[in-house]
Amino acid sequence: MDNIRNGRFKTGMTDEAAEYTSSFDADKVLFEADIKTNFAHTSMLKHEGIIDEEIADKILCALDNLKEEGFDALIFDASVEDVHMAIENYVTSKIGPEAGYMHTAKSRNDQVACDVRLVLREMIEEIQIGILEFIEGLVEMAGEHLEDIFIGFTHLQHAQPITIAHHLMAHVQALKRDYERLGDTYKRVNLNPLGSAAMATTSFPINRQLTTDLLGFDAYLENSMDGVSARDFISETVFDLVSLSSTLAKICEELVLWSTYEFGVIEMADEYSSTSSIMPQKKNPDVAELARGKTSIATGELITILTILKAIPYTYNRDLQEITPHLWNSVKVTQETLSIVTKMMLSVEFKVDRCAELAGKNFATATDLADIMVREKQIPFRTAHKIVGRIVNEATANEMAEENITSEFIDDIAVDLGFDKLELSDDLIQRALNPAENVKIRSIPGGPAPEMVELARNNIKDFLNIEFEKQGI
Amino acid sequence: MDNIRNGRFKTGMTDEAAEYTSSFDADKVLFEADIKTNFAHTSMLKHEGIIDEEIADKILCALDNLKEEGFDALIFDASVEDVHMAIENYVTSKIGPEAGYMHTAKSRNDQVACDVRLVLREMIEEIQIGILEFIEGLVEMAGEHLEDIFIGFTHLQHAQPITIAHHLMAHVQALKRDYERLGDTYKRVNLNPLGSAAMATTSFPINRQLTTDLLGFDAYLENSMDGVSARDFISETVFDLVSLSSTLAKICEELVLWSTYEFGVIEMADEYSSTSSIMPQKKNPDVAELARGKTSIATGELITILTILKAIPYTYNRDLQEITPHLWNSVKVTQETLSIVTKMMLSVEFKVDRCAELAGKNFATATDLADIMVREKQIPFRTAHKIVGRIVNEATANEMAEENITSEFIDDIAVDLGFDKLELSDDLIQRALNPAENVKIRSIPGGPAPEMVELARNNIKDFLNIEFEKQGI
Amino acid sequence: MDNIRNGRFKTGMTDEAAEYTSSFDADKVLFEADIKTNFAHTSMLKHEGIIDEEIADKILCALDNLKEEGFDALIFDASVEDVHMAIENYVTSKIGPEAGYMHTAKSRNDQVACDVRLVLREMIEEIQIGILEFIEGLVEMAGEHLEDIFIGFTHLQHAQPITIAHHLMAHVQALKRDYERLGDTYKRVNLNPLGSAAMATTSFPINRQLTTDLLGFDAYLENSMDGVSARDFISETVFDLVSLSSTLAKICEELVLWSTYEFGVIEMADEYSSTSSIMPQKKNPDVAELARGKTSIATGELITILTILKAIPYTYNRDLQEITPHLWNSVKVTQETLSIVTKMMLSVEFKVDRCAELAGKNFATATDLADIMVREKQIPFRTAHKIVGRIVNEATANEMAEENITSEFIDDIAVDLGFDKLELSDDLIQRALNPAENVKIRSIPGGPAPEMVELARNNIKDFLNIEFEKQGI
Amino acid sequence: MDNIRNGRFKTGMTDEAAEYTSSFDADKVLFEADIKTNFAHTSMLKHEGIIDEEIADKILCALDNLKEEGFDALIFDASVEDVHMAIENYVTSKIGPEAGYMHTAKSRNDQVACDVRLVLREMIEEIQIGILEFIEGLVEMAGEHLEDIFIGFTHLQHAQPITIAHHLMAHVQALKRDYERLGDTYKRVNLNPLGSAAMATTSFPINRQLTTDLLGFDAYLENSMDGVSARDFISETVFDLVSLSSTLAKICEELVLWSTYEFGVIEMADEYSSTSSIMPQKKNPDVAELARGKTSIATGELITILTILKAIPYTYNRDLQEITPHLWNSVKVTQETLSIVTKMMLSVEFKVDRCAELAGKNFATATDLADIMVREKQIPFRTAHKIVGRIVNEATANEMAEENITSEFIDDIAVDLGFDKLELSDDLIQRALNPAENVKIRSIPGGPAPEMVELARNNIKDFLNIEFEKQGI
Repeated sequence: MDNIRNGRFKTGMTDEAAEYTSSFDADKVLFEADIKTNFAHTSMLKHEGIIDEEIADKILCALDNLKEEGFDALIFDASVEDVHMAIENYVTSKIGPEAGYMHTAKSRNDQVACDVRLVLREMIEEIQIGILEFIEGLVEMAGEHLEDIFIGFTHLQHAQPITIAHHLMAHVQALKRDYERLGDTYKRVNLNPLGSAAMATTSFPINRQLTTDLLGFDAYLENSMDGVSARDFISETVFDLVSLSSTLAKICEELVLWSTYEFGVIEMADEYSSTSSIMPQKKNPDVAELARGKTSIATGELITILTILKAIPYTYNRDLQEITPHLWNSVKVTQETLSIVTKMMLSVEFKVDRCAELAGKNFATATDLADIMVREKQIPFRTAHKIVGRIVNEATANEMAEENITSEFIDDIAVDLGFDKLELSDDLIQRALNPAENVKIRSIPGGPAPEMVELARNNIKDFLNIEFEKQGI
Repeated sequence: MDNIRNGRFKTGMTDEAAEYTSSFDADKVLFEADIKTNFAHTSMLKHEGIIDEEIADKILCALDNLKEEGFDALIFDASVEDVHMAIENYVTSKIGPEAGYMHTAKSRNDQVACDVRLVLREMIEEIQIGILEFIEGLVEMAGEHLEDIFIGFTHLQHAQPITIAHHLMAHVQALKRDYERLGDTYKRVNLNPLGSAAMATTSFPINRQLTTDLLGFDAYLENSMDGVSARDFISETVFDLVSLSSTLAKICEELVLWSTYEFGVIEMADEYSSTSSIMPQKKNPDVAELARGKTSIATGELITILTILKAIPYTYNRDLQEITPHLWNSVKVTQETLSIVTKMMLSVEFKVDRCAELAGKNFATATDLADIMVREKQIPFRTAHKIVGRIVNEATANEMAEENITSEFIDDIAVDLGFDKLELSDDLIQRALNPAENVKIRSIPGGPAPEMVELARNNIKDFLNIEFEKQGI
Repeated sequence: MDNIRNGRFKTGMTDEAAEYTSSFDADKVLFEADIKTNFAHTSMLKHEGIIDEEIADKILCALDNLKEEGFDALIFDASVEDVHMAIENYVTSKIGPEAGYMHTAKSRNDQVACDVRLVLREMIEEIQIGILEFIEGLVEMAGEHLEDIFIGFTHLQHAQPITIAHHLMAHVQALKRDYERLGDTYKRVNLNPLGSAAMATTSFPINRQLTTDLLGFDAYLENSMDGVSARDFISETVFDLVSLSSTLAKICEELVLWSTYEFGVIEMADEYSSTSSIMPQKKNPDVAELARGKTSIATGELITILTILKAIPYTYNRDLQEITPHLWNSVKVTQETLSIVTKMMLSVEFKVDRCAELAGKNFATATDLADIMVREKQIPFRTAHKIVGRIVNEATANEMAEENITSEFIDDIAVDLGFDKLELSDDLIQRALNPAENVKIRSIPGGPAPEMVELARNNIKDFLNIEFEKQGI
Repeated sequence: MDNIRNGRFKTGMTDEAAEYTSSFDADKVLFEADIKTNFAHTSMLKHEGIIDEEIADKILCALDNLKEEGFDALIFDASVEDVHMAIENYVTSKIGPEAGYMHTAKSRNDQVACDVRLVLREMIEEIQIGILEFIEGLVEMAGEHLEDIFIGFTHLQHAQPITIAHHLMAHVQALKRDYERLGDTYKRVNLNPLGSAAMATTSFPINRQLTTDLLGFDAYLENSMDGVSARDFISETVFDLVSLSSTLAKICEELVLWSTYEFGVIEMADEYSSTSSIMPQKKNPDVAELARGKTSIATGELITILTILKAIPYTYNRDLQEITPHLWNSVKVTQETLSIVTKMMLSVEFKVDRCAELAGKNFATATDLADIMVREKQIPFRTAHKIVGRIVNEATANEMAEENITSEFIDDIAVDLGFDKLELSDDLIQRALNPAENVKIRSIPGGPAPEMVELARNNIKDFLNIEFEKQGI
């Protein structure tokens, strides 16, 4: 700090102020990227003849050494504001004041923006791979439950029979969008701000395309003021994590619900459960609960970031420094949660008998009874709906089970409501009310019939093959 | 409501409950889309032979009539929950109970999701066009100020000279990303949930590809449970509006700042200003302030939506109904704000003399003085930085203006700091300290030099041509 | 608008800008308060001899007329920015330009702050009364279920037996804090900003204590800059509504859960349920779901308000205008939700047999078995915990019910774990495992034993008596 | 972990799951409170004869030892979930398995709630003291600037002259409310959940009043289910911090603005400024900017907490564990920011000449000119407002300064607008337009006149005396 400040100021910051403004903790993650940026920038300066070749080589060599020695080779004390300064100090300690040349035509403003983008693009890829792996696991799990009947809910009430596989594949669709959203954001992350310098580029004849190529960016940012101050690539990424978190929260919520005594449709693995300090009988879905809690963090971090960004004028303002720690935290928490939810979900054991039992209860197949009336007897759906509504009402009031619904019972109700008798055969009625039959005939694209879910699985496998390859896996 | 409920329930909702759960206000916006969805669905049912051709034609004809008669042809009373029901009632009133056939193989769950997507995709396009128009205006405005020197800020302190054009083009870059982000989201909006029915598709042999084509969707959603309950396309859109709002807030903040007596670099148009009820001298940038305030609304709505979505299990839950009003409100407010900010910004008059004056004050050109030392005298940048820092310090303390900095003054300081004399010519020094010269030599891609800004303008014009065409304009 | 503006400006706002900046919709709620403020202010001006007595009386008379005629007596057109202006126009239309005297020593800045506080304090009281009524209903409902055994959950797993009454009284405690929090906020709402004028008070010798007394404020705000710009009383109120909403959301969540087929512990009233357009068997807890959704709105509005408030300098900025609509919306939504949740919750019918059945399942009484070991056999709790954990494990694996746990079974396990035999009597064991016994012995203050819940009910009844009286009911 | 789990489970958590669910980092802050809670609980168990006196004394002695040895005496490994477990392990290591007795009639659920409340009440007091100290400094600073004229802003435009002291005292009022709000929250924090046990109290005859007294709580929580799961005391505290942050953000925003070249009304201390790595002339208000950024964190944390709390049913759910780290972080960040903003603000040097200069510019005194017309010539305020508006308009257009406004000039305008001549004396006009005079005559309570600000200072000094004493300082 001193060597920057002492031209301009008589006093340094107080220790409290120095600590308050230090970005050191958050900067650690930038270490390798900062070396990379300095390396590319110095190489460009050398290539363009802006700095002396020999000096450039010394700097590049020192940077290489540092990369090998690692973060701990840096020295931090109160006078070192951030990792950029620490790296410069390192190079200076190796090659003397000529280290100063590496800052020709570069500012911390463009450097830090460049570093953050370099690190973030890798993190995005890692999370994307995590999502692909979760999808892969779910697709496999679905393959084991293609025919296992489950009950589908709307309003948390029994709606219609589905299969376990069909339910799992719903999560897959949501995760696929989370994956694609990150891919779209990546395009706005992978852009080069370097060369923007403090905010107005520089009078040195730098070559921005060269650093863009050296650093693997898709393009450079086309306005230097925007280059140093744009942070929408951060809020967008964090929103993507919020969206992914929302998918994970839904999964956790269901696991908590499903593992209750009352639902009892799954058994959580012991590895992801815990017990109580006072109630020895408990098997609690702690990991699912905690993960559900932690999915809220990205939303909070998004609000922090958006509030920081609110109505600050161009260009760089120090407030921006406070954005990155919240980015890193969102990434870290979401990544950890994705990882643990993947493993927890894939270790769940479905109690297939209980699942099937629930599907046969509570008239979940009533829609099909109405559909059959429409199809077989050409009555409007609304009429059928009204008749079946009354059937359910009476049956529930009289504690009649599905298997006791007869053609006669139905016709009595139809007549009572002022309609004609339907005269459906008892056999047809029982087929309509059978959950497994019910699922089979829903062989519409997107539907629960086993062959349709198999089709969906194959589509996703194709997607996985393509994307894993893109990600170099 | 009655005709749905009276099979199942003995009592209707209380009036308070009926009003509380009614989505009527928010549904108005769905009117045309709901007709469109019913039309496509009924056409498909007819085409696939699922319902009688003659009945289908009657339904289609009634829907056509309704479209022409408009929203006011619908009858709403306490028994009508939503627009879907009102439209069904209308068709029933025209053709009798056979209207009920239009609900074959369809549920309100897939219908409402379909309607919302149809409406939203048009809204996204409208906002995108609004952004393009704003960009177009800014690019033109920049063309009028290519050579007009302005001061660039970091930390709200004078940093380096730029031009007014360069500053305007920074906003353009941000707006361009806001545009592209909406385009990416569009891909996840323009998907067909129809055919998902209540949540498990249907046993009728529907043709989902046909409704997809008829409604102009890119594809259908591949899982029926996901189809009826996915709302991430909404939160993502609202985030995009948050991001656009953030861009607009920055513009408003600058206008408020720039129109202060102290900055005094712009004159706001009277059309976008107001005065005070008690202080007659005031000319207040009220529209800019209010717009800055209203940019916060999308963030609040995003939080409402994310909080609603938090951890609700599959599939449709009534909570989801509460999401759409917040979507429509975000769209409406953001669209209005975009429109007014566009006009307000484009009516701003820059006080070019004051802009240039500020650029020459407060040693905004000091970086160039340091750069010249590096270039001409081959000293490391850090050394030059230190010398210039001291120059500024001394000059400020002694109230020396830029034009009084001489070679001798510089060398005294260099020596005092323990370095060699630099012996730069006074002419070179004055050129370095001149803001206009300073801008000219920053002819790096992304820099403020007029030819570079012109290049950026041309790139954007190309972009505008392509995108306006895509949008059919 | 014109009559204010035409001194200073040559052009009026565009229609779009006028509409954009109009606060008319949100101002409607201020109508009566604005009259009240003008009345008090004019009375004070008269009393202090600042304006002519006769003129003052004319103004006061016109205000009285307006109050009687009501809001619709006001005329709004494009030139009327807000309700203050409309009221002034009304008075002018009645008594001529002397109406202008009512604005002596007053500004819209202090007036609007005053109006908002007057309205808000009444809204707070209304919500407080709503909370008291809900509490009253819950206390009564609890009285009907003092002995009805229910299962208490932690981690949504069976934890320990409680009673329905005990559960209801937990909600009461939360609601009581929501009530008290609003009372604390009220102290910061009920303060008089009038006299702050535009931001620096006035040179007229006004009497702020007099308007404070006339308007029933507790005190006047002690700094005029703070007086016109402080809005923390708004964000604080909205937070209180967020907190109340959080209590209501928990109630709704439980109702949704409890009315599932799986839990089946309550029957929702038909009045607060609905059915499905496609699935006739459904009885959905729509009101509870929608209310759960709507509890998210206050959180969103809080974020909107906090984002608007972020880092705006003193004093009044037009952004502040955008805060009040979000306040009113939070109040309205929360009030409606409170009202409907009160009625819905109080109409719930508990299935007491099912509640009791669940309490006897799944070893919810295991803690007591451990406690008995500690008490009777003086072994450390951790040892007992370990033994009981194993008992539950074995029993679950072998599908043993609670009534089959014998002293011998326990001792086998104790020995197997390396401890001594416990030799508890079978009778003691069965008493420990009986839910009703289990509840009775928890007669600790705050516990579920009927006499303790009765005590809690009595405490709350005392609280209700005091608070209803304070609220004038 | 093992000793709790191994009764119930066959497998432990995976290392990843154990780490994911560990609350260790956040628990460190609970160390002393946890000892205190255990101490009070064990003392009560002993006093009530629930556990053996001798054993109790051993436990108490071990806890005393641990308190002295400090946190580092605890052993943490993968099997230790939290600090409670670590402390129990410590006691066990000292006195053997009898340590287990300290958990009689207590659960981690009530213990952690108790610990958090104990820690939080101290933190609230510390922040309150920090606020008092800031107020004290501002009051002193105001005392040095009682007569120093400053310009007051509305809409960031010159509004009316004030004094620097008056402005500083506005912040004081906001801080006072922040202080009082925390005091109100304290009442809901300082309540005893101990005795709630897991969620249903206990069958041991514990004495809740005794632990309440021993721990210095105001009362115990009156429902055990509420006792273990209520977290509104946390969200409320965090909201208070959000509110305090909002006050601090406003201060920082003004400092950033005031230290611009354009405003130039303050000089920031070098200790709270920094310079640029590339622009040697910069003196940036970095601490103010960063503090402005960090004030956003509490808002983000509030959203995280509220989102976690959303719609989770009774009673304890593991999600709640994730709330406390966000509480601690909010407290830490707000405390640090309060401290640094206090020091930074109190080290600001006002450039009193520049402040006074601005107050005389831009017709900030125009309101008084209008007021004089009303007072001296008995014309309605609206008429005066119109005339003065035109005066300002003409004067600005013709670049006339305030000192050139004559009686004749005014009368020409009055006549031109269709009013009578006013014939005010030039002397009166100049007095009205003089900022210092303007301030003096605003001697209304809450106004900027020096004697009124002095009165306000004295009121605050009384407040400080009372509150410092309450806080034991």
